[in-house]
Amino acid sequence: MREAYHDQLGELAEQLADMCGMVSDAMERATKALLDTDLALAEQVISDDSKVDDARASVEENAYALLALQAPVATDLRTVLAVIHAAESVERMGDLALHVAKAARRRHPNPVLPDQVRPDFASMGRIAVELAREAREVIRTQDVDKARSLEQADDEMDDLHRHLFSVIMDKEWPHGVASAVDITLLGRFYERFADHAVSVAKRTVFVVTGKMPGYSEDEDI
Amino acid sequence: MREAYHDQLGELAEQLADMCGMVSDAMERATKALLDTDLALAEQVISDDSKVDDARASVEENAYALLALQAPVATDLRTVLAVIHAAESVERMGDLALHVAKAARRRHPNPVLPDQVRPDFASMGRIAVELAREAREVIRTQDVDKARSLEQADDEMDDLHRHLFSVIMDKEWPHGVASAVDITLLGRFYERFADHAVSVAKRTVFVVTGKMPGYSEDEDI
Repeated sequence: MREAYHDQLGELAEQLADMCGMVSDAMERATKALLDTDLALAEQVISDDSKVDDARASVEENAYALLALQAPVATDLRTVLAVIHAAESVERMGDLALHVAKAARRRHPNPVLPDQVRPDFASMGRIAVELAREAREVIRTQDVDKARSLEQADDEMDDLHRHLFSVIMDKEWPHGVASAVDITLLGRFYERFADHAVSVAKRTVFVVTGKMPGYSEDEDI
Repeated sequence: MREAYHDQLGELAEQLADMCGMVSDAMERATKALLDTDLALAEQVISDDSKVDDARASVEENAYALLALQAPVATDLRTVLAVIHAAESVERMGDLALHVAKAARRRHPNPVLPDQVRPDFASMGRIAVELAREAREVIRTQDVDKARSLEQADDEMDDLHRHLFSVIMDKEWPHGVASAVDITLLGRFYERFADHAVSVAKRTVFVVTGKMPGYSEDEDI
C-alpha cells in the first residue's frame, strides 16, 4: 500500500515536471512569435494553452484521489498539497505565455517591439524559459541547491524589468504611449512568469527540507 | 468527532471570510490614498499587508491540521482544498492592494492620476471593494445566486479597464508616457483583484454545488 502510494506520488511529480516543460516551450515559442512577428507560432501557443489547463486539471484530480484514498499525513500530505499549489502556479505561467502570444497576434503584421527593446525581451524570454526548465529539474531531482540558483536568474529578470522601465520612462522615448503600454504589460508578464517558476522550485525545497525559503511573491512594480 | 470536524471547517470558512474583509478594507484605503494623495494611508496599507499574509499562513496551517487529523473525503475534502486555494487568491488580492498603495507612495507628493482618469479609478476601486465584500458574504452564506451576481460586477470592471486603455492609447493623451505606464499597471492591479474575488466566490459555489462554473481566469490584457 505505501509503495503504491509512493509510486502515485512519483507520477504526480512527473506530471508536474511535464507541465513545466510545456510552459517553458510555450514561453519559448511566444517569445519567438513576439520577436519575429510570427503569427502562426503565436496561434500555436494560443491553441496549445488548453493542454496546460487540462494537465493541471489532471494533476489536481490525481492529487485529490491520492488524498481521499491514502489520507497521507506529515511530509506526504505536505508534498501532495505542494504539488496542488505548484500546478496552479505552472498553469498561471502558461496563461502568461498565452498573453505574450496574444500581444504578438494583436499587433500583427506590425511588430510589437521597437528595435530598441528587442534585446531586452530576447534576454527576458531566455531567462523565463531557463527558469521553467530549471524548475522542472528541481521537481525531478529534488536538488535543493539548484532551486536556490533559480533566484539568481530571477534577480537578473528583475534587473531587466527595471531597466525596461527606465528606457520607456525616459523623456527621449520616441515610440509613443501605445508602444510603452504594450511593453509595460509584456515586461510584467515575463517578470511574473519568473516569479512563479521560483515559487514552484521553492515549494519543492520546502517539501525536501521542511523549511520554506525566504520568499517575496512579487516585485514592487 | 464529525461534529468537531464541522466546527473546525466552519471556523476555517470564517477565517477565510475575515481575510476577504481585510483585503477589501486594504483596497478601499489604497484607492483613497491614490485618489487623495494620502501618504499616511498608503503607509498604513503597506504595513498592514503582513497581517493578511499571517492570516493566510494560519488558514493554511489549520487546513493542514484538519486534513492530517480528520482525513476528510468527498465533499469535505474538496471544501478544505477549496479553502486552501481561496486563501491563496485572497492573499494575492492583498498584494494587489499593496501595489496600489506603493504606487501612491512612489509618486508622493505628486498625484499618480491625471484628473481625466480619476473617476475611472474611483469606480474601479468601488467595484473592487464591493467584489471582495460580496465574496466574503458568499463564503459566509454559501449563497450560490450571490456568487453569480459577482460576475456582473466583474464585467463592469473589465469594461472600465478597456475604457482606460482607450483613453491612454488615444493620440491626444496629453500626460506623457510615464503617466500612461503607471495607469496601465494600476488598471491591471484592479482588474486582477476583481478576477481573484470572482474566483474565490466560484470556488465556494463549487463546494456547494459540486460544479465549477465556467470560468476564464484572466482577461486578454
